[in-house]
Amino acid sequence: MLVMANIETNPYKGVRDFYPEDMAIQNYIFEIMRDTAESYGYEEYSASILESSELYRAKSGKELVNDQTYTFTDRGDREVTLRPEMTPTLARMVAKKQKEFSFPLRWFSIANFFRYERPQRGRLREFWQLNADVFGLESVDADIEIINLAYDIMINFGFSQDNFEIRINDRSLVDKKLAELGIDEDTSDKIKLLIDKKDKIENFENELKKLAGDDFTFNLEANENINKIISGLKKAGVTNVIFTPTLMRGFDYYTGMVFEVFDKNTENNRSLFGGGRYDKLLDIFGGEPVPTVGFGMGDVTIRDMLETYNLIPEIASSTDIYLCVVNKESLDGAKDLANDLRGQGLNIIVGSPDKKVGDQIEKASKNKIPYVICVGPDELSKRRYKVKNLASGKETEVTENGIVSLVFVE
Amino acid sequence: MLVMANIETNPYKGVRDFYPEDMAIQNYIFEIMRDTAESYGYEEYSASILESSELYRAKSGKELVNDQTYTFTDRGDREVTLRPEMTPTLARMVAKKQKEFSFPLRWFSIANFFRYERPQRGRLREFWQLNADVFGLESVDADIEIINLAYDIMINFGFSQDNFEIRINDRSLVDKKLAELGIDEDTSDKIKLLIDKKDKIENFENELKKLAGDDFTFNLEANENINKIISGLKKAGVTNVIFTPTLMRGFDYYTGMVFEVFDKNTENNRSLFGGGRYDKLLDIFGGEPVPTVGFGMGDVTIRDMLETYNLIPEIASSTDIYLCVVNKESLDGAKDLANDLRGQGLNIIVGSPDKKVGDQIEKASKNKIPYVICVGPDELSKRRYKVKNLASGKETEVTENGIVSLVFVE
Repeated sequence: MLVMANIETNPYKGVRDFYPEDMAIQNYIFEIMRDTAESYGYEEYSASILESSELYRAKSGKELVNDQTYTFTDRGDREVTLRPEMTPTLARMVAKKQKEFSFPLRWFSIANFFRYERPQRGRLREFWQLNADVFGLESVDADIEIINLAYDIMINFGFSQDNFEIRINDRSLVDKKLAELGIDEDTSDKIKLLIDKKDKIENFENELKKLAGDDFTFNLEANENINKIISGLKKAGVTNVIFTPTLMRGFDYYTGMVFEVFDKNTENNRSLFGGGRYDKLLDIFGGEPVPTVGFGMGDVTIRDMLETYNLIPEIASSTDIYLCVVNKESLDGAKDLANDLRGQGLNIIVGSPDKKVGDQIEKASKNKIPYVICVGPDELSKRRYKVKNLASGKETEVTENGIVSLVFVE
Repeated sequence: MLVMANIETNPYKGVRDFYPEDMAIQNYIFEIMRDTAESYGYEEYSASILESSELYRAKSGKELVNDQTYTFTDRGDREVTLRPEMTPTLARMVAKKQKEFSFPLRWFSIANFFRYERPQRGRLREFWQLNADVFGLESVDADIEIINLAYDIMINFGFSQDNFEIRINDRSLVDKKLAELGIDEDTSDKIKLLIDKKDKIENFENELKKLAGDDFTFNLEANENINKIISGLKKAGVTNVIFTPTLMRGFDYYTGMVFEVFDKNTENNRSLFGGGRYDKLLDIFGGEPVPTVGFGMGDVTIRDMLETYNLIPEIASSTDIYLCVVNKESLDGAKDLANDLRGQGLNIIVGSPDKKVGDQIEKASKNKIPYVICVGPDELSKRRYKVKNLASGKETEVTENGIVSLVFVE
């Protein structure tokens, strides 16, 4: 073996290691996302992170394709990309089986993505994202459902309706206004890009007037589509929805409603995630158009927000019992007991008799395992065990069946 | 938007799309792996698929580093690799926090890996793998535990002890023999490589004699280490373990016990997965040595074997009830009912009144959703609902609370 000392132990720049305590939080976040999506009947799908690069050339905003992807050539001379977002993959998958499907489809995935960006708070080179989409429903009810689902995830994380707001717009409003003013398509695209980045641009108003003329204002009124969505959400108790005519959502494939969920915390007022309606995405595959509405919700910003609001719960160990093995002679008996208890659905660690009893118990306590049983010759001959609850300190002497009842009841 | 017709809808060569029905099977496989690992008190960890390439140069077998990885240069001129296996990442993570940890650690992950190979049955360019490892236990009990865990996963998948065998060896046996014969280290490495590939090499015996001399035979006897492991496993009811002195396991970081699980099906007799003890892996990070034993179990071969033995179960829909909406006027009431039921832990799809009642019920049936409730003006005014069990055809009229009881009890 080639031995090199002191290789870097940090992960690659902008990606994360998930040690067990971080993984538990990550799994908690994914569980809330998954459970809520499934509560609306959404089915889980997935795909490889590696895609042919042509998929992105055709579809995404240009910024993403040119500067921000991880793109390389494989050993067979194919140009491949680590996916920066789910939508092109999803469109590819739906296009492939379009003729077999009975629409509507309600689908979700929880997957990872790469973007070559400078890592900063809320933005990493690798992130995970829930994507939830409804395919095949033109009705505004699909828009309402998808926003309601996004809202329910926030509530299920423990946020209150006051902690965030849902900004909503219809991209066709600006398009209509620009057409009325006789502005050509090319300039319109520039204007929409400008509006999308307005918070990052100095002299936004001046820049806008340069492109759109002095007559352009944002005195836009919500159309029937947006009003129906807002009132439908209100009926379901979702009242923190605000019509926001400047909301664009960067990617250029949205065709109608767009929405974004904003953190209202004054110190951290920012966009958390969003989505919208994109009815023409399957066009590039040469298939029939399928009306679609969906959103993507990233793990990095949500985890930051959960931390800010102190909403990450204390996560219990997945292990139920630590068997502290008193001496070498008791190890076989402890293993038998462990295997029996595993067969009844309990998760059991068998300690090592090479370690002192005190050290074994300390290890259990450090790992937040709720129960410890010390197993020695006495316990094994009598087949009675003292189950210690490490949180309360309470000790209960029971038979093997008693162990199972105790853990499941408490 | 740039529109290109007829972009490829197939995934990149050698990777898979997971449509909902495939994802359900994949999740089933992962659940068995996860539940069994947790039953032994193993904690889940994870890391990014993207690693600095130097991590692999130092460690893996040479074949893997040179020809089989996806390696490229990022936009910041760093050489990066899509991980081909978990062990180097795991070693990096443990080395980083070695001083904070209280050993032993019992860790597992379920993660994806890339290898640039010609796709064939049981071998793809992207695969998923369970990795389970114990760090910090020198005792043979850790070897026994890790093999027992691998065995339990097979049993929990529904395989019988007759379907597979566990081949076991100690790499130090061959090392000792070669040293006794006075063979130098370089030739020893060649001999071990030859033995590792013996099933693929014509005239294996001749080739072996060329390198090792006429005196070399495989009349090796199991040492005390192997005998203890085999008898320890026998005590736990694991009796399909066979000492196999030719078993090498390709990667060169194993230092003692190695094992492989073999499918005994005569038409498909092959290695499924394996692992072993590697006590020196952390050396390259300049840390203290940590005795380690573990294994990796891939999804592709296991899924093939589950299919061969007809052991993939019928997987129920995660959706409990499909609300068939009779007319537009009933949609708001159906949505309210759905939201109430979701709040009580049920997963509900609200159908679209644009579709005929018959089509909605057919859709529910096609998606294997167990219950349908038709919601119309009559149901909403009386607040009584007919719950139809699609499998049995049985219809039960209940109140809203009755719906919840019915679904949870049945």
